[in-house]
Amino acid sequence: MGEFDVIERHFRPLAGQDALELSDDCALLTPPEGQVIAISTDTMVENVHFLPTDPVNTLGRKLLRCNLSDLAAMGASPLGYTLNLTLPRGRTYSNEWFEAFCSGLAEDQKHYNIPLIGGDTTSTDGPLVLNATIYGGVKREKALRRNGAQVGDEVWVTGTIGDAALGLLALQNILPDPTGWLSTRYQLPSPRINLALHDIANAAMDISDGLVQDSAHIARASGVSLQINAHKVPTSSAADALGPQHLKRRLSGGDDYELLLCVPPHKTAALKAACAQHGVHVTHIGRVDVGQGVTVCDEKGQSLHFEKTGWQHF
Amino acid sequence: MGEFDVIERHFRPLAGQDALELSDDCALLTPPEGQVIAISTDTMVENVHFLPTDPVNTLGRKLLRCNLSDLAAMGASPLGYTLNLTLPRGRTYSNEWFEAFCSGLAEDQKHYNIPLIGGDTTSTDGPLVLNATIYGGVKREKALRRNGAQVGDEVWVTGTIGDAALGLLALQNILPDPTGWLSTRYQLPSPRINLALHDIANAAMDISDGLVQDSAHIARASGVSLQINAHKVPTSSAADALGPQHLKRRLSGGDDYELLLCVPPHKTAALKAACAQHGVHVTHIGRVDVGQGVTVCDEKGQSLHFEKTGWQHF
Repeated sequence: MGEFDVIERHFRPLAGQDALELSDDCALLTPPEGQVIAISTDTMVENVHFLPTDPVNTLGRKLLRCNLSDLAAMGASPLGYTLNLTLPRGRTYSNEWFEAFCSGLAEDQKHYNIPLIGGDTTSTDGPLVLNATIYGGVKREKALRRNGAQVGDEVWVTGTIGDAALGLLALQNILPDPTGWLSTRYQLPSPRINLALHDIANAAMDISDGLVQDSAHIARASGVSLQINAHKVPTSSAADALGPQHLKRRLSGGDDYELLLCVPPHKTAALKAACAQHGVHVTHIGRVDVGQGVTVCDEKGQSLHFEKTGWQHF
Repeated sequence: MGEFDVIERHFRPLAGQDALELSDDCALLTPPEGQVIAISTDTMVENVHFLPTDPVNTLGRKLLRCNLSDLAAMGASPLGYTLNLTLPRGRTYSNEWFEAFCSGLAEDQKHYNIPLIGGDTTSTDGPLVLNATIYGGVKREKALRRNGAQVGDEVWVTGTIGDAALGLLALQNILPDPTGWLSTRYQLPSPRINLALHDIANAAMDISDGLVQDSAHIARASGVSLQINAHKVPTSSAADALGPQHLKRRLSGGDDYELLLCVPPHKTAALKAACAQHGVHVTHIGRVDVGQGVTVCDEKGQSLHFEKTGWQHF
């Protein structure tokens, strides 16, 4: 089974019209009338972003969902994605492997209404590396940015925070996870796309490297400070069950792919309605203030110190 | 020096306006009026696509040029590119390394008029992996495809063929390369962009995996056969100097990034003029016929057999 057979057999069925059947040098993406193309790209490396023991059919889905989460953060609608596979040379990748990998992608492509439009397959002496670059459509003036947070805004997050970081430890047999909820949150995040928050939030980003570190990105880009109330940060019952000693890990752990939002108080009802329409829980966790950086306080108002605020690769 | 410092210090100066200063979740690419976005993506892996001994300032340039070559094949004009770096964890990447890497990119960005608009940086336990995804603008009806070759067309190639494959052997000290021409062709291909062949060629692609194999792609996509005259395939004087025993290697070796074109005979003058305007040599090497597949003949009309027609990763 050669490279071109694999493309023909496994990837061509995933390809949308813009892919030109994956048989040309480029895809041709048609921009929706009056919109710009939002572009994001993510690399996932075995042992860094996923585990060799993760089910094969979750690998492509996780990659796609992480990328979708970036579109969600900007308020863009999915148009297509390209996929780069870099496969270890020493291993045998069977038809069954590609079938599992692609069936996961097919499921998510359908769910999120996004086709494959191109890609590249290569080999390496190292671990498996997956890249996707994703394309969405958005009106330029409606794109959500990190730099729009205003003093007086309230800070909100979707979903629950810290599950993925605990899920990774569960998958490494360091923590228990009797329901499997935490592991699933690590393997299959839920990108919060199509919430239509462009006239509601002043600033948005997705939480990929950890709440505290990512809050600092918004603070810096907007020239403000963010005050986070640790006890207000929503936890899942699976995370709660592991006890309060994991608080800092939850607040600084990556891979949640929830949205961090700065919203003026008079837009609270609109925010809740927009999220409710998609069954997404949203929680008020702090406020935007003058100054710079991020302060995280406990319920007594004591500020918490983080040795590590989030993930950096080097 | 952390990940965010590297982005701020080394990559932000490369970023164009669409990059939003590399500080948001997505870039926002504005499609030129009336054009579609041509998208191509390439991965380069250390020891597979480049050598650990290659000069650092050529690495990003090679990646960018391979991608530009895909735009050239479709007749699209560069708009921007995104870059994914996956850096080995065990090694130290100094400021000097990033300076060299980025100065090469800066040079080519200027030469080819293309800005960086986004990217991702990650770490791996394996070798260095580089990806770029490139975006170009083209009118949909003007895009050059692989599937348009017509019986009676002549087959042409730009530049000289086989230099890069011999250059790789020279860099591995298997062949001599007294002028350095062959090694340079391996490390820094010359993408043939902006030739404006859309009303001249019926089919086009870039030769990345080897002339014979890539000719087969056009034959299959167009439902025709390609007849290549081996003795007409243009060689550089550096390749010539190594003797005729490398013929098959030249015809099946990858990494040339020249264009393979199928052109009706009455467009010969227009083809030559379009190429001459950019100082690009173009050579007639065969014809398009009924049937399927690729036949390569020597000057006596004997067909040559290839055990390996080109590169496949697996």
